[in-house]
Amino acid sequence: MPTVDLNSDLAEGYGIWTLTEDEALMSVVTSANIACGLHAGDPEIMAKAFAFAKSKGVAVGAHPGFPDLWGFGRRRIPFSPGEIERLVAYQVGAAQALATYSGHRITYVKSHGALGNICEENAEVATAFARAVKAVDPSLAILAGPLGEQAPATRAAGLRAVAEIFADRGYTEQGRLIARGQPGAMVHDPDVAADRMIAMVESGAIITAAGTKLPTEIASISVHGDGPHAVETARHVRTRLEAAGITVAPFAP
Amino acid sequence: MPTVDLNSDLAEGYGIWTLTEDEALMSVVTSANIACGLHAGDPEIMAKAFAFAKSKGVAVGAHPGFPDLWGFGRRRIPFSPGEIERLVAYQVGAAQALATYSGHRITYVKSHGALGNICEENAEVATAFARAVKAVDPSLAILAGPLGEQAPATRAAGLRAVAEIFADRGYTEQGRLIARGQPGAMVHDPDVAADRMIAMVESGAIITAAGTKLPTEIASISVHGDGPHAVETARHVRTRLEAAGITVAPFAP
Amino acid sequence: MPTVDLNSDLAEGYGIWTLTEDEALMSVVTSANIACGLHAGDPEIMAKAFAFAKSKGVAVGAHPGFPDLWGFGRRRIPFSPGEIERLVAYQVGAAQALATYSGHRITYVKSHGALGNICEENAEVATAFARAVKAVDPSLAILAGPLGEQAPATRAAGLRAVAEIFADRGYTEQGRLIARGQPGAMVHDPDVAADRMIAMVESGAIITAAGTKLPTEIASISVHGDGPHAVETARHVRTRLEAAGITVAPFAP
Amino acid sequence: MPTVDLNSDLAEGYGIWTLTEDEALMSVVTSANIACGLHAGDPEIMAKAFAFAKSKGVAVGAHPGFPDLWGFGRRRIPFSPGEIERLVAYQVGAAQALATYSGHRITYVKSHGALGNICEENAEVATAFARAVKAVDPSLAILAGPLGEQAPATRAAGLRAVAEIFADRGYTEQGRLIARGQPGAMVHDPDVAADRMIAMVESGAIITAAGTKLPTEIASISVHGDGPHAVETARHVRTRLEAAGITVAPFAP
Repeated sequence: MPTVDLNSDLAEGYGIWTLTEDEALMSVVTSANIACGLHAGDPEIMAKAFAFAKSKGVAVGAHPGFPDLWGFGRRRIPFSPGEIERLVAYQVGAAQALATYSGHRITYVKSHGALGNICEENAEVATAFARAVKAVDPSLAILAGPLGEQAPATRAAGLRAVAEIFADRGYTEQGRLIARGQPGAMVHDPDVAADRMIAMVESGAIITAAGTKLPTEIASISVHGDGPHAVETARHVRTRLEAAGITVAPFAP
Repeated sequence: MPTVDLNSDLAEGYGIWTLTEDEALMSVVTSANIACGLHAGDPEIMAKAFAFAKSKGVAVGAHPGFPDLWGFGRRRIPFSPGEIERLVAYQVGAAQALATYSGHRITYVKSHGALGNICEENAEVATAFARAVKAVDPSLAILAGPLGEQAPATRAAGLRAVAEIFADRGYTEQGRLIARGQPGAMVHDPDVAADRMIAMVESGAIITAAGTKLPTEIASISVHGDGPHAVETARHVRTRLEAAGITVAPFAP
Repeated sequence: MPTVDLNSDLAEGYGIWTLTEDEALMSVVTSANIACGLHAGDPEIMAKAFAFAKSKGVAVGAHPGFPDLWGFGRRRIPFSPGEIERLVAYQVGAAQALATYSGHRITYVKSHGALGNICEENAEVATAFARAVKAVDPSLAILAGPLGEQAPATRAAGLRAVAEIFADRGYTEQGRLIARGQPGAMVHDPDVAADRMIAMVESGAIITAAGTKLPTEIASISVHGDGPHAVETARHVRTRLEAAGITVAPFAP
Repeated sequence: MPTVDLNSDLAEGYGIWTLTEDEALMSVVTSANIACGLHAGDPEIMAKAFAFAKSKGVAVGAHPGFPDLWGFGRRRIPFSPGEIERLVAYQVGAAQALATYSGHRITYVKSHGALGNICEENAEVATAFARAVKAVDPSLAILAGPLGEQAPATRAAGLRAVAEIFADRGYTEQGRLIARGQPGAMVHDPDVAADRMIAMVESGAIITAAGTKLPTEIASISVHGDGPHAVETARHVRTRLEAAGITVAPFAP
């Protein structure tokens, strides 16, 4: 019986502003990626999310991004790989401390937004990312696309890479995300998303927009934490996965 | 033969801006309090300071402050004790991670600016501060004035408090700092500062502006890292202490 | 037939985050107070709000606050009156430029959050506020409580003060807002709020929690732009005012 | 007798941090480009610089940049031309208001750092920049390289472009700045810098690294406001220009 983790980017508010329905989603997902204060998240939001995740048995990871509140970490700010190392170490340490403070413990790291996109494309940046994580705590895993640059760079650095696919995104023939704005980039129908996730998990392959099966490990499925239908969609995907006999459980020990 | 530590607030630049002569001062002091990014310091400056401290055998601590770059952490921003806990945990974790990344290890924490002043006056805030530090790493010590609220609150929380006096500040009859702007608040002459430090360390007492001796442990002397004469003054104080037979060495193991 | 303006604090999002339903509210209110980027609002949100207000015939004002995104301008950050002058001038100028860029023109200024509270309590700060506004453009009016410190300070500075009451707040015997958290501070029922507004406008008086009538000019009613029922409540108050024969129109020429 | 303006980027500190020796340089230059708070500069620093410039008869301009304190506006943050319009309008308005508050008046705008580089390379961005300035105040001039994209875009938008050359930079055969890091990018010797400025002003041409004369209007010379020798170098260039019979005076009426 296959097992898969369900993760979501959470704690992405700031001060008075909220973006993600953290508590509702933590009743659905098994891993919560917690923003670390530079693209979103503040210590209050972070600590509350860690404590709530603990109470629900949800695994937690640090979700570092570029220092860009205004652009929500989605703008490609030209940092050197070395600067990215320090940026990531800073955020992972801050998240680790607030998790501990809240009685929980982070077990993995996932890169956010533009930083995440660059890590998938650029082995040098992915290596810098892994080096930062390893320096802080070599027992931490890194969530990464199965067929991008980040997974092999993570493994080469001696860390565990956890292969993640996205419930609502289409894939190219190379097994990478179709860029937003391109046809097929987004899967809007929750039922179609669920069908695709079940097929991918069962076949152990990314299924591309053209229908090609690219065999790969799949350890986690990412669902969105923001948007008007986030909770509903996440719940639907989980229910469908379980109905198909797939166990939904955190990947981390 | 008495021994005393010499500490200074360093890494207090931001981006292009510098404030403290980090490298020159690390040839003089034995402990460097590293700003954590919210009132000053950025990951580049922090990592560089930790690495340089390691290379010079200088002990390092986290120096968290209020999130206020514009006001340099010197404005009393009304945070609740609980919010201060999260703010401090965040910064200590970030500093800890960057120290580890740089091959060093923080052994203590010192509160900055307005946050530091409040910790000396208000036992509830000092307790919140200690609780945050303890949650992140209970082996960390806290630098605190010997006769304020922070030292007993730190000890009550089960952490080590390291008693610190200021080389260039006058003391009230209660053994607290004379507020800036009041007569006697500042000691400008490096020789007078050195005389006073030697007298206090040798007598094991804070000597007030009126000349009263208030017996207390003294484990560290703080010298300024900014200002046009920071390096020169720090060096002078150290030379005079050593000439008086006092060993200058880090307090931390 | 009495006339009253209906104003609301809008454009209070930041980057990806939204707080206020700007477009829906601009179909209800006659004046929109636009956040200026330091406590909320960014140039994109501001420009869009100014353009939309223009298209709906809604008057616009600058709504400056303390530089505190995290605290949403609700924390009392200790700025001197002189610093407040510069802070306010900066924000009013930025808002004026973006209004002009968007084809509109600001006609008034309203202080936000903690800055607003201080202006009502402290004549010196209210005078600093007025001085800043006057320096930028002496034709700008200032929205202020009828019986606080800001209205007389504004008039003493030679500017027009526009007396404003709050639809959902209770008033003390002195005609000031009952502090949040105190009994009677908030009026939750939209019908009760509407009843009170009609009574106050018709009687030309603030009616206190104890029922005392404090005669005063009333030129504008403030309704909230955030919260789940903001649009509905604002629309209800407006409908009830108009049903009572009160004209709802911008105060500014 | 030729006349030329001497301009410098000033007010580039932030809070406690200083970068430029504003007061000393305002005894040398005839135009001061004032940072607007997003890459550097805060309302205190800005207001002080405007007031001091007024007292010295120095012309002032707004010097807007990308919102990036950490990167000092030197990183190319991917903003769309439309977003750049709003960013620039915001900053020009803020500067205009603080200048007025300080008794002065801005007469021009100059783009900073990465934004400036993009304006020289990209006509679409230069047009957006000009559109923003024009919307705020069509009487404002724009400082721009004589042979880049910004000068013609500025003129096409109906604004005055003021041709500016840099005292300490080398020029390509196309009359553009040699990129930093390339051979010949920087002119370190103040005497060589002065020689080149005199030759260019007298010949009415940019003189390239290869010695080619590219005839063009030259209305202003930019000297650096930061660095250890900024004041000395600026004074030297001015003295040499005047000794060569060139009048140094602001370009703006």
